[in-house]
Amino acid sequence: MNYVSALPLDHVRFQRGFLAGRARLVREVVIPYQWEALNDRVPGAEPSGCVHNFQVAAGEKAGKFHGLFWQDSDLAKWIEAASYRLATHPDPALEAELDRLIATVAKAQAADGYLNTYFQLVEPQNRWANLRDCHELYVAGHMIEAGVAHFRATGKRTLLDVVCKLADMIDRTFGLGPGQIPGYCGHQEVELALVKLARATGEKRYTRLAAYFINQRGQEPNYLLEELKRRGETLPWHMHFDGLGTLQAVKPVRELTEPVGHAVRQMYMLAAMADLAVETGDDSLLQSCRTLWTAIVRRHLYLTGGVGSEPYGEKFAEPFDLPPDRAYSETCAAIGVIFFARRLLDVELRGEYADVMERALYNNVQSGMSVDGTKFFYVNPLEVIPAVTKRRYECHLFKTQRVGWFGCACCPPNVARLFASLGEYVASQRTDGLALHLYADGDLRFTVAGREVRLAVRTDYPWTEDIAIEVRPAAAAEFTLHLRIPGWCRGARLTLNGQSQPLAPVNGYVALTRTWQPGDKLVLTLPMPVERIHADPRVATVAGRVALQRGPVVYCFEEADNGATLSALTLPRAAPLTARHDPALLGGCVVIEGPGTRDQITADLYQTAPPATTPVTLRAIPYGLWANRGEGEMRVWLRES
Amino acid sequence: MNYVSALPLDHVRFQRGFLAGRARLVREVVIPYQWEALNDRVPGAEPSGCVHNFQVAAGEKAGKFHGLFWQDSDLAKWIEAASYRLATHPDPALEAELDRLIATVAKAQAADGYLNTYFQLVEPQNRWANLRDCHELYVAGHMIEAGVAHFRATGKRTLLDVVCKLADMIDRTFGLGPGQIPGYCGHQEVELALVKLARATGEKRYTRLAAYFINQRGQEPNYLLEELKRRGETLPWHMHFDGLGTLQAVKPVRELTEPVGHAVRQMYMLAAMADLAVETGDDSLLQSCRTLWTAIVRRHLYLTGGVGSEPYGEKFAEPFDLPPDRAYSETCAAIGVIFFARRLLDVELRGEYADVMERALYNNVQSGMSVDGTKFFYVNPLEVIPAVTKRRYECHLFKTQRVGWFGCACCPPNVARLFASLGEYVASQRTDGLALHLYADGDLRFTVAGREVRLAVRTDYPWTEDIAIEVRPAAAAEFTLHLRIPGWCRGARLTLNGQSQPLAPVNGYVALTRTWQPGDKLVLTLPMPVERIHADPRVATVAGRVALQRGPVVYCFEEADNGATLSALTLPRAAPLTARHDPALLGGCVVIEGPGTRDQITADLYQTAPPATTPVTLRAIPYGLWANRGEGEMRVWLRES
Repeated sequence: MNYVSALPLDHVRFQRGFLAGRARLVREVVIPYQWEALNDRVPGAEPSGCVHNFQVAAGEKAGKFHGLFWQDSDLAKWIEAASYRLATHPDPALEAELDRLIATVAKAQAADGYLNTYFQLVEPQNRWANLRDCHELYVAGHMIEAGVAHFRATGKRTLLDVVCKLADMIDRTFGLGPGQIPGYCGHQEVELALVKLARATGEKRYTRLAAYFINQRGQEPNYLLEELKRRGETLPWHMHFDGLGTLQAVKPVRELTEPVGHAVRQMYMLAAMADLAVETGDDSLLQSCRTLWTAIVRRHLYLTGGVGSEPYGEKFAEPFDLPPDRAYSETCAAIGVIFFARRLLDVELRGEYADVMERALYNNVQSGMSVDGTKFFYVNPLEVIPAVTKRRYECHLFKTQRVGWFGCACCPPNVARLFASLGEYVASQRTDGLALHLYADGDLRFTVAGREVRLAVRTDYPWTEDIAIEVRPAAAAEFTLHLRIPGWCRGARLTLNGQSQPLAPVNGYVALTRTWQPGDKLVLTLPMPVERIHADPRVATVAGRVALQRGPVVYCFEEADNGATLSALTLPRAAPLTARHDPALLGGCVVIEGPGTRDQITADLYQTAPPATTPVTLRAIPYGLWANRGEGEMRVWLRES
Repeated sequence: MNYVSALPLDHVRFQRGFLAGRARLVREVVIPYQWEALNDRVPGAEPSGCVHNFQVAAGEKAGKFHGLFWQDSDLAKWIEAASYRLATHPDPALEAELDRLIATVAKAQAADGYLNTYFQLVEPQNRWANLRDCHELYVAGHMIEAGVAHFRATGKRTLLDVVCKLADMIDRTFGLGPGQIPGYCGHQEVELALVKLARATGEKRYTRLAAYFINQRGQEPNYLLEELKRRGETLPWHMHFDGLGTLQAVKPVRELTEPVGHAVRQMYMLAAMADLAVETGDDSLLQSCRTLWTAIVRRHLYLTGGVGSEPYGEKFAEPFDLPPDRAYSETCAAIGVIFFARRLLDVELRGEYADVMERALYNNVQSGMSVDGTKFFYVNPLEVIPAVTKRRYECHLFKTQRVGWFGCACCPPNVARLFASLGEYVASQRTDGLALHLYADGDLRFTVAGREVRLAVRTDYPWTEDIAIEVRPAAAAEFTLHLRIPGWCRGARLTLNGQSQPLAPVNGYVALTRTWQPGDKLVLTLPMPVERIHADPRVATVAGRVALQRGPVVYCFEEADNGATLSALTLPRAAPLTARHDPALLGGCVVIEGPGTRDQITADLYQTAPPATTPVTLRAIPYGLWANRGEGEMRVWLRES
């Protein structure tokens, strides 16, 4: 299990609607497309070199290493995604392709278990010499996740054996014992991977190793500073301001009170901390998770569910410093938010975790991939003026249009593995029954007291308000269904077999305990009026502005609908707003329309008269679907008038 | 003359009021303070090394060079400032100090006329090898300006001879003739200096050399690209996006239509182009000046008169990309705006030139120096949240408090030389009389038809509206007084000897032609209501916001007066605003007060309810005086409600 409470992937079958569409796109388009990219067969896209590097390391072909220290991780994430696909949709051709690839990976592994094609091919003498920057344990973590996913999907131990050998090698190498390296990776990831490996194999040694990495981080003497001294270096540019805080390594993890540094690393570390809290019952770790969760959600979260607003070093910034135009909001960081939130749902059923998970999933993460599945964003700003974004140096890592691949391609396969494993995020198996976190059209199976129950969920969520759930136990059975009542929702209603039910959610979930009969029908109605969202005035860059949200979906205004110079638009506070489903637009979605005003261009750059205004009709589309109709301006936060 | 139409410095004597105070501060505090800084005698400030470097180069002491390639220019600008001071306020001690310093400079000069302590002491083999980055001609230009200023102030040729020898050496070295270098400096400055030298010496060869540098810039084959190839380098980071456009060297100057690249270089080049247009009557150069003037004023000018909104490379950005929080607005660039505007007033009497000159002088440039004259800003943003500014990487060159000196200390002595020569900006001598551009309390002398006329100007401008001018010709004389009616002013009134006069300004000036009698009294009244300023809505970062201006003075809101979280404040469009002179505040200034609202902190980071508001009294102070009361937030543009 990635999550102790997750249903097995093949127990969740999406049928129709938005999430099903994304899952199908990933199965049918994204995974095959990314395989082409990883084999350097996509014309015009930045080359990956991933498969090539393993073939060279395996002695299957001649050539040189291509890419970054952590290039292997892109392939590992793709193996993980492809394995999830096999779990839900068996495919002999893909399985055979994976077998061949895994044979190559196994051949590439060193006799002692080490596996990293960069260091094997380019700097064999420098294994583990620069833990801060070289990401060897991060790469190992991704390969471990791939091995676990492949094993769970196919039952085959081919890659699992490789990663156990790798993990054993790491276990021998790192620690506080004699001859061991008392270090940890500059980029967290191996920690959560080791917990998965322990869960898959039952080997508690891997959990202890994960705990070692978490506990040792930031302890004195600081390993990364010692390492730095050995190399005779100073801290690099991207550690401006934060120093080793960039890597969350400036103090022990239990002493952190505010998120800091590289956002993906922070989120992956928190995910691992939540895992370890579950595995070990360590209350101090859980307390630290809760403290940082609150800090992130209260002071560092974009409306789209993204985190990390500082482009330099892809970092968390000051509390409330969430500029929309410079929102780095890396796709991987939002995925990290989802990882952390989902793990906290393993700890306790609290709607706020699922609310944030849903926010990131429907907004920031959707933005990460084009509607056709072949183009990706790494950076997901909430406001773009293409000419300005392209020219501002602080935005030089931003793209105004999605691209086919990246030199540092962490995000595309991360999206693929997330969408390929969406079933794990939908619900939590509980001893008393099931908790439903996300609503999507599909069929679920779970067990209660050893007996299987099926749920048929029918909905066009997030576009429509009704979720019909047919409960299909093999025979009448008593258990509890916990239905999430989203934090964004006011006035939720529920019927059971046509009878209205009282709704008194606790911590964001309503618990329905009864003896369920086959064919019992629930209809949950989550009213989705268009909501105007205002930010805390300490978010200086959007104070006085308004964003639109409907259900979990955050909206944006695009030049394609509203013309250029979106900064000239205002939305009156009293303007009536209409939601309308447009089946032809971007695969079908709900658009929001209403009257607004547009400031006219002034005669001078500065003038005493306020700009004249003209009435306009404003049109907003879901943020996650932006930039699918050519290049143009976009903004989430509109001036309110 | 720095400007062909300027009055000699000793013909303008400021008496009381704001500009007089700044001029006095520069004379009495800034020039002595900077001498200490240049001699590395200011505790806690970054060391300069300037005087030290010349002493070492002159063989007067042992030691190593300290600082940047262009370190000498700081000293040159100080010599220029000190010379202006001698012109208005003779001071034997300062003059003797200058004599000693100039003797050292003369001794440091190489036999062939070359003078640059960095290349003489550190890289003698690399003279002129990297024109793009090493600023040798820029440094020469500042020394030439110093030599001209010293000669004009004292009549002594000691430094003038040194710089003529230097200019002659440059004239032999550069050009399109056989054996000459067909290049030009990466940082324009020598061009305008050579025009000054030509005016001071009557030697037209220097004008031709300046014209060569301007005309050769950006021609094919591109010298700087050829030089780059010779060095086997690629373009450096700060030329991201603009390439050689950073140096305005990507095409010939007459083909430029939009300001681009490093703002100070752009402005100094335009100043030289305007000079050359005056000297040579070259209409194509003048046309280019006008085109760029319009582009700058319409699309690239901060309300404070600053230019260059891109911190990376200190550059012009996209049209209308004028974010207040990332406003680089280098002090030197605003001084460059003043240089350019003043030179255009040599070409033609148009109020728009004086309006922008005044805007930069009273706002951006004032911000560059503390009210006590010992601390300086290099970067002048229009909005600061100290914690955010200190942490955002794109603001890592910003300071939230002025400092005593900089490692690259171009700005402080630039402010000093500007304030020490303010008399040159106040008026233009004309064949038909005099044009008054800036109003400041003081006494002026000028000549008309060979006879001297004195003007006694009495005003507390920019705080009060009345300017009383007593005309004191030696005897009754017919001539024209051109009085500027500022572009910001509506409803100006004029009396002559108590009689109201019709006012019909042409191009921003009203021409008063008559036979003036000794004792004729003019009173010009420039109403100064508090004005609300709105920007073109294409300035996306301040759309929907309002700034306050009164007369030429732009206002800002400081935490010291309004509390923290200035983003929570709004100014209702209808709020009555009161201007009040506070003689105790920051040396005496007018503050603006009025009712506003403050958004309350919200319960959540995002919420559907608009933040609750409470009424507050807002208080604004002149922007140029900000950051003189400890560290805190500041913003010029407030949300309008």
